[in-house]
Amino acid sequence: MATKKGLLQRLDEGVVIGDGGFVFALEKRGYVKAGPWTPEATIEHPEAVRQLHREFLRAGADVMQAFTFYASDDKLANRGNESSKKYTCRGINDAACRLAREVAEEGDGLVAGGLSQTPTYLSGLGKEKTQREFQNQVDVFVQNKVDFLIAEYFEHVEEMEWAIEVCLNSGLPVVASMCIGPEGDLHGISAGECGVRMAKAGAHVVGINCHFDPFVTVQGLRLMKAALDREGLKVHLIAQPLAFHTPDAGKQGFIDLPEFPFGLEPRICTRWDMHKYARECYDLGVRYIGGCCGFEPYHIRAVAEELAKERGTFPKGCEKHEPWAGGLKMHTKPWVRARAGREYWENLRPSSGRPYSAAMSKPDNWGVTAGDDILKQKTASTTEDEIKILKTKKTKA
Amino acid sequence: MATKKGLLQRLDEGVVIGDGGFVFALEKRGYVKAGPWTPEATIEHPEAVRQLHREFLRAGADVMQAFTFYASDDKLANRGNESSKKYTCRGINDAACRLAREVAEEGDGLVAGGLSQTPTYLSGLGKEKTQREFQNQVDVFVQNKVDFLIAEYFEHVEEMEWAIEVCLNSGLPVVASMCIGPEGDLHGISAGECGVRMAKAGAHVVGINCHFDPFVTVQGLRLMKAALDREGLKVHLIAQPLAFHTPDAGKQGFIDLPEFPFGLEPRICTRWDMHKYARECYDLGVRYIGGCCGFEPYHIRAVAEELAKERGTFPKGCEKHEPWAGGLKMHTKPWVRARAGREYWENLRPSSGRPYSAAMSKPDNWGVTAGDDILKQKTASTTEDEIKILKTKKTKA
Amino acid sequence: MATKKGLLQRLDEGVVIGDGGFVFALEKRGYVKAGPWTPEATIEHPEAVRQLHREFLRAGADVMQAFTFYASDDKLANRGNESSKKYTCRGINDAACRLAREVAEEGDGLVAGGLSQTPTYLSGLGKEKTQREFQNQVDVFVQNKVDFLIAEYFEHVEEMEWAIEVCLNSGLPVVASMCIGPEGDLHGISAGECGVRMAKAGAHVVGINCHFDPFVTVQGLRLMKAALDREGLKVHLIAQPLAFHTPDAGKQGFIDLPEFPFGLEPRICTRWDMHKYARECYDLGVRYIGGCCGFEPYHIRAVAEELAKERGTFPKGCEKHEPWAGGLKMHTKPWVRARAGREYWENLRPSSGRPYSAAMSKPDNWGVTAGDDILKQKTASTTEDEIKILKTKKTKA
Amino acid sequence: MATKKGLLQRLDEGVVIGDGGFVFALEKRGYVKAGPWTPEATIEHPEAVRQLHREFLRAGADVMQAFTFYASDDKLANRGNESSKKYTCRGINDAACRLAREVAEEGDGLVAGGLSQTPTYLSGLGKEKTQREFQNQVDVFVQNKVDFLIAEYFEHVEEMEWAIEVCLNSGLPVVASMCIGPEGDLHGISAGECGVRMAKAGAHVVGINCHFDPFVTVQGLRLMKAALDREGLKVHLIAQPLAFHTPDAGKQGFIDLPEFPFGLEPRICTRWDMHKYARECYDLGVRYIGGCCGFEPYHIRAVAEELAKERGTFPKGCEKHEPWAGGLKMHTKPWVRARAGREYWENLRPSSGRPYSAAMSKPDNWGVTAGDDILKQKTASTTEDEIKILKTKKTKA
Repeated sequence: MATKKGLLQRLDEGVVIGDGGFVFALEKRGYVKAGPWTPEATIEHPEAVRQLHREFLRAGADVMQAFTFYASDDKLANRGNESSKKYTCRGINDAACRLAREVAEEGDGLVAGGLSQTPTYLSGLGKEKTQREFQNQVDVFVQNKVDFLIAEYFEHVEEMEWAIEVCLNSGLPVVASMCIGPEGDLHGISAGECGVRMAKAGAHVVGINCHFDPFVTVQGLRLMKAALDREGLKVHLIAQPLAFHTPDAGKQGFIDLPEFPFGLEPRICTRWDMHKYARECYDLGVRYIGGCCGFEPYHIRAVAEELAKERGTFPKGCEKHEPWAGGLKMHTKPWVRARAGREYWENLRPSSGRPYSAAMSKPDNWGVTAGDDILKQKTASTTEDEIKILKTKKTKA
Repeated sequence: MATKKGLLQRLDEGVVIGDGGFVFALEKRGYVKAGPWTPEATIEHPEAVRQLHREFLRAGADVMQAFTFYASDDKLANRGNESSKKYTCRGINDAACRLAREVAEEGDGLVAGGLSQTPTYLSGLGKEKTQREFQNQVDVFVQNKVDFLIAEYFEHVEEMEWAIEVCLNSGLPVVASMCIGPEGDLHGISAGECGVRMAKAGAHVVGINCHFDPFVTVQGLRLMKAALDREGLKVHLIAQPLAFHTPDAGKQGFIDLPEFPFGLEPRICTRWDMHKYARECYDLGVRYIGGCCGFEPYHIRAVAEELAKERGTFPKGCEKHEPWAGGLKMHTKPWVRARAGREYWENLRPSSGRPYSAAMSKPDNWGVTAGDDILKQKTASTTEDEIKILKTKKTKA
Repeated sequence: MATKKGLLQRLDEGVVIGDGGFVFALEKRGYVKAGPWTPEATIEHPEAVRQLHREFLRAGADVMQAFTFYASDDKLANRGNESSKKYTCRGINDAACRLAREVAEEGDGLVAGGLSQTPTYLSGLGKEKTQREFQNQVDVFVQNKVDFLIAEYFEHVEEMEWAIEVCLNSGLPVVASMCIGPEGDLHGISAGECGVRMAKAGAHVVGINCHFDPFVTVQGLRLMKAALDREGLKVHLIAQPLAFHTPDAGKQGFIDLPEFPFGLEPRICTRWDMHKYARECYDLGVRYIGGCCGFEPYHIRAVAEELAKERGTFPKGCEKHEPWAGGLKMHTKPWVRARAGREYWENLRPSSGRPYSAAMSKPDNWGVTAGDDILKQKTASTTEDEIKILKTKKTKA
Repeated sequence: MATKKGLLQRLDEGVVIGDGGFVFALEKRGYVKAGPWTPEATIEHPEAVRQLHREFLRAGADVMQAFTFYASDDKLANRGNESSKKYTCRGINDAACRLAREVAEEGDGLVAGGLSQTPTYLSGLGKEKTQREFQNQVDVFVQNKVDFLIAEYFEHVEEMEWAIEVCLNSGLPVVASMCIGPEGDLHGISAGECGVRMAKAGAHVVGINCHFDPFVTVQGLRLMKAALDREGLKVHLIAQPLAFHTPDAGKQGFIDLPEFPFGLEPRICTRWDMHKYARECYDLGVRYIGGCCGFEPYHIRAVAEELAKERGTFPKGCEKHEPWAGGLKMHTKPWVRARAGREYWENLRPSSGRPYSAAMSKPDNWGVTAGDDILKQKTASTTEDEIKILKTKKTKA
């Protein structure tokens, strides 16, 4: 481990490939509950978490991000989630770090510990309480000797700044990534300004993850980069978008779309979309390129294949995947063999087989959310009566 | 194991839930090569195969189908596939049976050994040589004491009859399932007639798998059932369709669609589609209900949830999934909590986020294939020159 | 006039081109009221009716169909229509015949008098009363010396047989055309059987008009022709479909579609669709080829252009339209000049510019209607209360 | 005529409704040739031109715009157009004015003479020659005592300024309207700047016509209005957009779309789209509201109905059209009667019945065009060889 190059050196020298989204992949595999989205699977089903890490490693990921999303004490107890009765923040985070390290050692992977936004902040409980939640997780990361920290999935740059402050105390490299689009954060602060504030707060790498598709995310990063350039700030950029097409999403991204989270299938990106995404990132100067919700191992593999020449290496998983559909030359049907080539797949505009569905949806458009009462933390699950009230609000909006 | 109920008894008493598709799921995870689609992963990466079995078991599957698809000697050597240089049919099938049994014992699962159509038949080499390929696999299944046999993914009922004949010699229950749609097999024999011939050949369960979506498959089964009823034949029915929408596919199913196999994402069924599918099957009298390519564990879980009342049980995996999106009551965003209910998801017609794609595709429509020269087996991979010729043929068609 | 060839001779010798739809075209021009759809414009605005006749003549139509649709006394008084207070059936039909004749004499056109289905029949008032409505119109047609009669837009073959009986008494050639699709009439009688019954009732030409798009209509005619051939019946065939795409319509055709009648725009056929339609008709043996609702003069011109070689003539209107977009060679923009050719337009799949609309709609599916109470004639307009009840019924259906 | 209120007084007091597009409507009726799009029909078929004027008058139009589009001498002789051999600019413009006046006198209509951009400008022949073309038309307008002048369909604000200069010499009110979108003119000048320059050049009314759909046009006007406000310029605004949806069009508008001009049908706006358009215009402060290509009389009627309250009057044509589908209460089918109301039509998202078409198209994107050699005027028609070269250029672009 001592001989491994660190994150920042790798970024200076070339491209670092991130992994994909754990909560969505493991929800489909049966180990994460949609709604709370907490990672108690690290204790309950370590073999499932380990297997997913391994698949991303094989696909070309350089980073094993410990599965610690939403694993703060306040989130584990929120809205009827029973995880907090069985497990602690410490237990879940500790197990997550050990699983990530175990698989990272099977290759040349780095381990990252991850923080995300907290119900404490959304409930308006202030900086001190919010930072205490972060500190609890960072303590575990430091004890487990992770290689760097990622503060990701923040909707408000203010909370992000508090997280960066906590992270920097660890002495580890800090990546800061917000779940915003070109319109900026949910307090109305522009994407460019968010980038600048994260850099000024001391993050070594800044960027965007989740909430929007690869191409909308690149647009957001373009704005961030322009603002950083204007300010003369030198930091690396990270992109870890959704693997769902979201050209129609509003300010809150895919969460606002009517399909979230159980009808997103027709929006899933193809591997060819990911080639295009990787190239756009690279051309913009983004050097940490990974994925978030919806990114399966084969999406990461496509990123690795697109950048194989720049990186000088093909991922292991390519023993089972020849670039640009080369494997189809072995198909039994002759007309499928005729699809073994780049031109065919680059030009395909795939159909949905759903003639009663429209191409785009109108999002719910809840817009900017700051200190709204209905966002406050509750330990009890939502009641049927509360849902009725919510539906009324939505109709009016 | 002695106390387990057998397949036929289970079918007489209620519903048996099958598992989902291994080749597509493991291709995305990095362990199967698209094109040859052969299952050498049973030897190369047993932990990945085991994990997928386990996920289906948790999701509610009653059957662990050994991962032996296309694992006949002739297929392992076809069109440049290097598997035959490293592994034998015997080795792959043996490993597959052991993995399936191992996971089946973690629950109350049955193990099935599976045969599929052969290049030998497609190359016109005759009954004796074709049956020899089948016998080689069945020998391994018998030695491994599988609970029953599935002959599936046959495009020609003639080859299926030969397979059933071999399977019956084992003394085990035999399931026979063709990859056809309402238009019938690729020699032009109707779906109804295919059902009748499989039943007359002695299969205990007959039906359809792969190539078409759940709803087109139910249409095909409806024709099969009507023909069986007309002939007074009493057999059980099986459905194991794709998890891709294919209303626009022609005779050859999804293989003809321009999106096959690397652009099918917008066609992926939602879990709610699977509720509908399970109900339609049950109402038609189908009692063996599973999936094929594209079916991920959460699709099988949806089948199990839809039929939970009829089966008197919820699958284990439901500890992480409340029926009809109940878990969303714990979501942080209030308007997502408002989606926690059946009506919302049953009425959603999900958008693709792809405004430049059409809803439906024109299939390549190669139609009936019988003894066509370009279908003959070759051990060499297709050359660039051959692909040029194929493209010309397609343009003319 | 004496020297003009009659309809039947023309059909024996080649193709007769019909005109397009008057009610929809004149609704958009401001002279017909959607809802009652009655032709009092023949008296109120003769110049507008004359102009539309003239446009169809220029476009290549051989027939000037007098604008007598729904001009029976019972329909003029139905559901609050005030036409019956100002005009008589006799007056409207008489004016219609004179306008048609006037324009027909500007070329080599034939004049047809048209009958359509009656509220009297739908209200279950019996054969005698229904035939009296028809006789009133036929009397005017005979006095005006029309060249032949068309009984068209009938949903029930029984009423059609009554109409044919009345028409035959005039001694004129009789064309019989039902507004049905491949599923047959609204009493559940098959399309083939409808064709046979019309021929046996004595019609000289039988076929289909309105309610379905050109391609669905050709499917219906294919069924009709097969049944006529089986019975050895020799009659000519007529097609006068909608100019709206209706692949998704149910038994009642476009009336069931949610877009009827004020949201049909995205379904309007292009001129290139009409080339294809004309060719399909011709190849099937249909010799009377025209249009119904939605057919504008340029659609008829496209039919005439497609069949120009077979007919040995181009319509006058082609002085302003070169076949297959030839006129675009004179466009100021170079890339539009590059579109001057057949291949471009035959391969275009035009977009709707409506990303929030689906490709297909679920029809209301009221299905077979026979003697349903809500179909009975009323002279009063529908009240708000009745509409509320109707909406409830629909929700249940 | 002496008692009629003039244009500017009417605009100060309320809304003036324009007419719709003549070239597209008369092309479909058979009197205008697509490609050259010149108005020789004023001489060849005056009855057809008169009838269309009359329909717009009945629909609620306050302005009869003489059909003088592209009727400059240079355009009549361009690219093989034979009009110049038979007719003069003077003859066509004179006939156009008389037809417009004749119909205007049937109501309270104003007559406008219209100029549009010239091949002379596009060929780079300079200000003097370009203005001579304008002057030739204006001379005829003045002799015919039109009520005001419209310079419309200009892609370059420079040419527009030259046109305004000529128009102002007549002493008549001058309306100036460019065929641009939110991206501005084809020399790259912003929409706002175009508005300002037209106002500073002396136009009394400025705005946008053609090339983009109603909603994109309103966006463009919003930019124009903001720029005018910033400069403190007080002029009235005019909107005369397409009746085709163009959310996907690039800088050159619908001419770039692959569907132009013979595959635009699925993009045609409904009457309900026009209600929305009229309301958006009114709310923005636009007071001259009409249409361009694709606007049929019923579209103008919808504008008049939406603004009936503000204008205190319903158009004559409404004797045949009750607002918000009221006439459907008289329909024979009960479920169609249930559609007689505003809510139904406002919420409808109409389907295209074209499942093989995408929602949006990629435009050809020729972008800014200034002095490009291929834009120069030629009297000869484009040859096949030139078209081959054009196609190559397009593929590269």
